[in-house]
Amino acid sequence: MNRVYNFSAGPSCIFEAVLQKAANQMLNYQDSKMSVMEMSHRSKTYEAIIKECEARLRRLMNIPENYKVLFLQGGASLQFSMIPMNLMKNKKVDVINTGQWTKKAIAEHLKLGEVKVIASSQADNFSYVPKVTKDMISDDCDYVYICENNTIYGTAYNYVPETNGKPLVADFSSCILSKPCNVKDFDLIFAGAQKNMGPAGLTVVIIKEDLIKEKPELPSMLSYKIHADNNSMYNTPPTYSIYMCGLVLEYLEETIGGLENMQKINEQKAKILYDYLDSSKLFNNPVNKEDRSIMNVTFVTGNEELDKLFILEAEKNGFVNLKGHRSVGGMRASIYNGMPIEGVEKLVSFMKEFEEKHYV
Amino acid sequence: MNRVYNFSAGPSCIFEAVLQKAANQMLNYQDSKMSVMEMSHRSKTYEAIIKECEARLRRLMNIPENYKVLFLQGGASLQFSMIPMNLMKNKKVDVINTGQWTKKAIAEHLKLGEVKVIASSQADNFSYVPKVTKDMISDDCDYVYICENNTIYGTAYNYVPETNGKPLVADFSSCILSKPCNVKDFDLIFAGAQKNMGPAGLTVVIIKEDLIKEKPELPSMLSYKIHADNNSMYNTPPTYSIYMCGLVLEYLEETIGGLENMQKINEQKAKILYDYLDSSKLFNNPVNKEDRSIMNVTFVTGNEELDKLFILEAEKNGFVNLKGHRSVGGMRASIYNGMPIEGVEKLVSFMKEFEEKHYV
Repeated sequence: MNRVYNFSAGPSCIFEAVLQKAANQMLNYQDSKMSVMEMSHRSKTYEAIIKECEARLRRLMNIPENYKVLFLQGGASLQFSMIPMNLMKNKKVDVINTGQWTKKAIAEHLKLGEVKVIASSQADNFSYVPKVTKDMISDDCDYVYICENNTIYGTAYNYVPETNGKPLVADFSSCILSKPCNVKDFDLIFAGAQKNMGPAGLTVVIIKEDLIKEKPELPSMLSYKIHADNNSMYNTPPTYSIYMCGLVLEYLEETIGGLENMQKINEQKAKILYDYLDSSKLFNNPVNKEDRSIMNVTFVTGNEELDKLFILEAEKNGFVNLKGHRSVGGMRASIYNGMPIEGVEKLVSFMKEFEEKHYV
Repeated sequence: MNRVYNFSAGPSCIFEAVLQKAANQMLNYQDSKMSVMEMSHRSKTYEAIIKECEARLRRLMNIPENYKVLFLQGGASLQFSMIPMNLMKNKKVDVINTGQWTKKAIAEHLKLGEVKVIASSQADNFSYVPKVTKDMISDDCDYVYICENNTIYGTAYNYVPETNGKPLVADFSSCILSKPCNVKDFDLIFAGAQKNMGPAGLTVVIIKEDLIKEKPELPSMLSYKIHADNNSMYNTPPTYSIYMCGLVLEYLEETIGGLENMQKINEQKAKILYDYLDSSKLFNNPVNKEDRSIMNVTFVTGNEELDKLFILEAEKNGFVNLKGHRSVGGMRASIYNGMPIEGVEKLVSFMKEFEEKHYV
């Protein structure tokens, strides 16, 4: 066994072929006789890398021409501030609260304006995604903010909220590239790369051009306009992370064959796990069925000691990082794009054995 | 020839042994059976990596205990704003203007307060570093800001400005780790990693603890206090870049044998190049001798066409990225830690041949 099955919530597993290619190119990228890490970001070789990365993302996600793609730093956490800094006018935002990541976004927004939580599943431990209708949207809000996939709770939007003409801003950190997405349904999509796109330290923002405004009062590094005008080269971008993201996108396009195929694989993986959980007498998934995430699958035995034992024995058997987030406990299997089907099949076999031994 | 001699100003050359180790560990780090890129930043294995990286930096630079080391994102460009956001009280700052990077820092500072340029070499094309004395420091400034090594012009501070008790803040992006540094002479040192520390996308801040203040009004990602309180783990840090930085530091400690040795090597490299430039009839270095940088060596022939020809022929011979910054023209050899002595020796041989052919 040279590799474990890594169910980490992020950073997480990357396609093995991508890592192998990166290893092979580490000292000499395509006869440039240097590592991508060593390249000037202004060199022709590197410019080709970042442009190809953007082109692949545009093709895979079918991003319309009137959207800009920005390669930034600082993770989703910095976007929680950059979004209001750049998009607020009335300084009022509507948020659908679906867990810790919307709560963190709310906390940062509150430093800059008002937040109205128009729906929340907090009272039910964020076990579902609230249904929002047009009439719930505030007349004077600048935008509506959602988290598309909730890593900690294992929930996801399986519908697009109607926003009554207000811009829709969505955190796609833990589901981007997991299936086709109608980008036009959103005005700003952002994602930390470290789940489905590559290494931590890269943040991708896909933003409708008419939302990008001159903001001379902002620090340059926090202005979407400055990054857009400079094609993400206002300063030195995280060059190697963008290269790795490009390799992941190449794999998705050329080996997987696009996001429709990726979706089939992801739905197959999720079905294997959820079908077993629904039939299991030991393990239970606490999420409302129609709001289940295909990326993060949470489960509990109902017995904390048994949960601990499961996590420990799973690790011994090569299934690692199955511990649930410290705020909710239990288990969580993050089955991002990089997790092969056989990883999920073998995990379920292991869970069945564990159930046979421990269900009394 | 499998590798070129890469004189890029940054991102730039990395020790070959470091790249080789990274390639070897890409799919399986120390029997973890996963890539460092795939590791949860909260895992024990990764925690050991970031802690060891910090410990090595502290040992190498002899960082006093009352200084925090922060691993951040956004490059020097984001520090141009984070520094005033976190350190300003009177909203007044003294700056010594030594080139484009202090000018950029000034522009960002001006969005947040007043800037007094207490000395500048702009009138002389930034070909020297002004000498600043105590009496030039403003009584009411919050800190004095300098750029320790000026990448574009090839100048460096070979003295520590006396600041009359005001904190001294220094951009060390292009000289950190090039030689021993008395950290106590400074109150805040920062550096983008992409010259002497590793890949782009990591920024290191070394800050005296008593400068770190609670700033609840700031976005969390822009608060030194929040990053310090969370040991650079407030959000997902650029995990792979920190790992690479750790490998560079390991090489400096265990193979080079510390910064005193690194200094000797760097001074030897610089001497080879400057001695030749001083003796050359074709090439000329425009910098005031006592302010010369040992990291970035600029030179011109005085003939733009000949400069172009030199850059072109050098590239054909495996000496790449010798073109000077677009704002100044001519040539620049960045000879960071990762450039071996033989790279400089061979470059000088090549320059001599070029001079013989083209000096008339």
